[in-house]
Amino acid sequence: MRVAFFQFAPRFGRIGDNLETVLARLEKVEADLIVLPELFSTGYQFVSKRETAELSEEIPSGRTARRLSEWARDRGIWLVAGMAERKGKALYNSALHVGPKGYAGTYRKVHLFDEEKKWFRPGNLGFPVFPVGKVRLGIMICFDWFFPEAARSLALGGAEVIAHPANLVLPYCPDAMVTRCLENRVFAVTANRIGSEKRGGRKRLTYIGQSEIVDPKGRILTRAPGNKEILKIVEIDPMEARKKKLNRFNDLLRDRRVKLYKTGRK
Amino acid sequence: MRVAFFQFAPRFGRIGDNLETVLARLEKVEADLIVLPELFSTGYQFVSKRETAELSEEIPSGRTARRLSEWARDRGIWLVAGMAERKGKALYNSALHVGPKGYAGTYRKVHLFDEEKKWFRPGNLGFPVFPVGKVRLGIMICFDWFFPEAARSLALGGAEVIAHPANLVLPYCPDAMVTRCLENRVFAVTANRIGSEKRGGRKRLTYIGQSEIVDPKGRILTRAPGNKEILKIVEIDPMEARKKKLNRFNDLLRDRRVKLYKTGRK
Repeated sequence: MRVAFFQFAPRFGRIGDNLETVLARLEKVEADLIVLPELFSTGYQFVSKRETAELSEEIPSGRTARRLSEWARDRGIWLVAGMAERKGKALYNSALHVGPKGYAGTYRKVHLFDEEKKWFRPGNLGFPVFPVGKVRLGIMICFDWFFPEAARSLALGGAEVIAHPANLVLPYCPDAMVTRCLENRVFAVTANRIGSEKRGGRKRLTYIGQSEIVDPKGRILTRAPGNKEILKIVEIDPMEARKKKLNRFNDLLRDRRVKLYKTGRK
Repeated sequence: MRVAFFQFAPRFGRIGDNLETVLARLEKVEADLIVLPELFSTGYQFVSKRETAELSEEIPSGRTARRLSEWARDRGIWLVAGMAERKGKALYNSALHVGPKGYAGTYRKVHLFDEEKKWFRPGNLGFPVFPVGKVRLGIMICFDWFFPEAARSLALGGAEVIAHPANLVLPYCPDAMVTRCLENRVFAVTANRIGSEKRGGRKRLTYIGQSEIVDPKGRILTRAPGNKEILKIVEIDPMEARKKKLNRFNDLLRDRRVKLYKTGRK
């Protein structure tokens, strides 16, 4: 399975331009699964609820979802793309999932970061796992990395590959994803953006790039530079993520001592 | 609060010698909390159940526990020391916790690694958090690091500092502890051993040293070399671990979306 990320700098508010940038770049890509950054079509630094609403689209009936669904269907490629979703009055920081049959699913970011809480509602779809051919795909978005429960929920749900659209500004995530992959024995494709934004008198946000693909043994198969538009494709064997045995005595999932864990659940 | 680890190479089966090595080295140490490696008094590579039983001791009535309790009481110092515990017929890979009032508690390793499963029973005390003056101390042992639920359980139980005796042979843990501290906003003192063991025709185990102290922002305050006996003391402010707010909008513990997490609990 050839998995890929496309790291680039979306232009704020220019949905059509960003969509065309991506489609032009992916035109001749030979991959099975491609991951785009969080909010790839709109940019990140919203400054009002109204602006966020105007730039959010319905899934799967909006322009971006329709266009990417067609694209994926035509080429028989799976794609995960972060975008602002409007559902009735609710706005979500979502990831659109499309594939050979067109629209395939949606994930809504569960853990919103910083001012995102002003613009978006927290995700209400849990941590769904989607079939991608014979492979099971989990999706999480950016700051979800910070909560080990996100990747763990996906792994417990059977995910072998995690698609991880991101707009990282802090330095911790690329190394932390090594731990996420190790502790769950999964692959992860983190697609981060580059460039910076400074809007509405707010502090400048500089995105750290360093998109990466990590394997179930915590090996960084590829890591992008911090400020370069780049598309990377890596061949992986997702079945490696089914091997949860660490040695003759330890099995990652069976060794969990669930009854002893505090979860904070009332 | 001055926290410390003592990284050294225990001699297999020589409880008295290891105890004296430690006490001699700690004689003039000025610290508030000292962490010793996993199984510091016995060594790690057991080759039979009988041998393990012979080297295990009762807590707090056995020699090692009594000696360290006295030592801690005399000096008014808190100490966490990995040791083999015998309780009736059961053997545990435990951590003894002693302090200014002598014996203070026991933790029994919840996630046993590899052949340890042949010698020890898995811990049955959960993830208790102990008062250490005004600070709350959690304990986990070595391979517990691999399961994010261990450190998370301690943090949810209020731990501000995690004492982490270890006998690491794989390379992943020192970096992973950065993620553990970040995701829980806690301090961790990992006390690993050095040297190697090759017993009973088994594969040689080489311990990686690199004991470390990490802060709630994932900063490595000190990391020891891979093969050097060393005692390190770092001054920390445990109250930093009470600040779970990441920014104006995010609070590490309140932002957990507990109802959405899969736990594997039936």
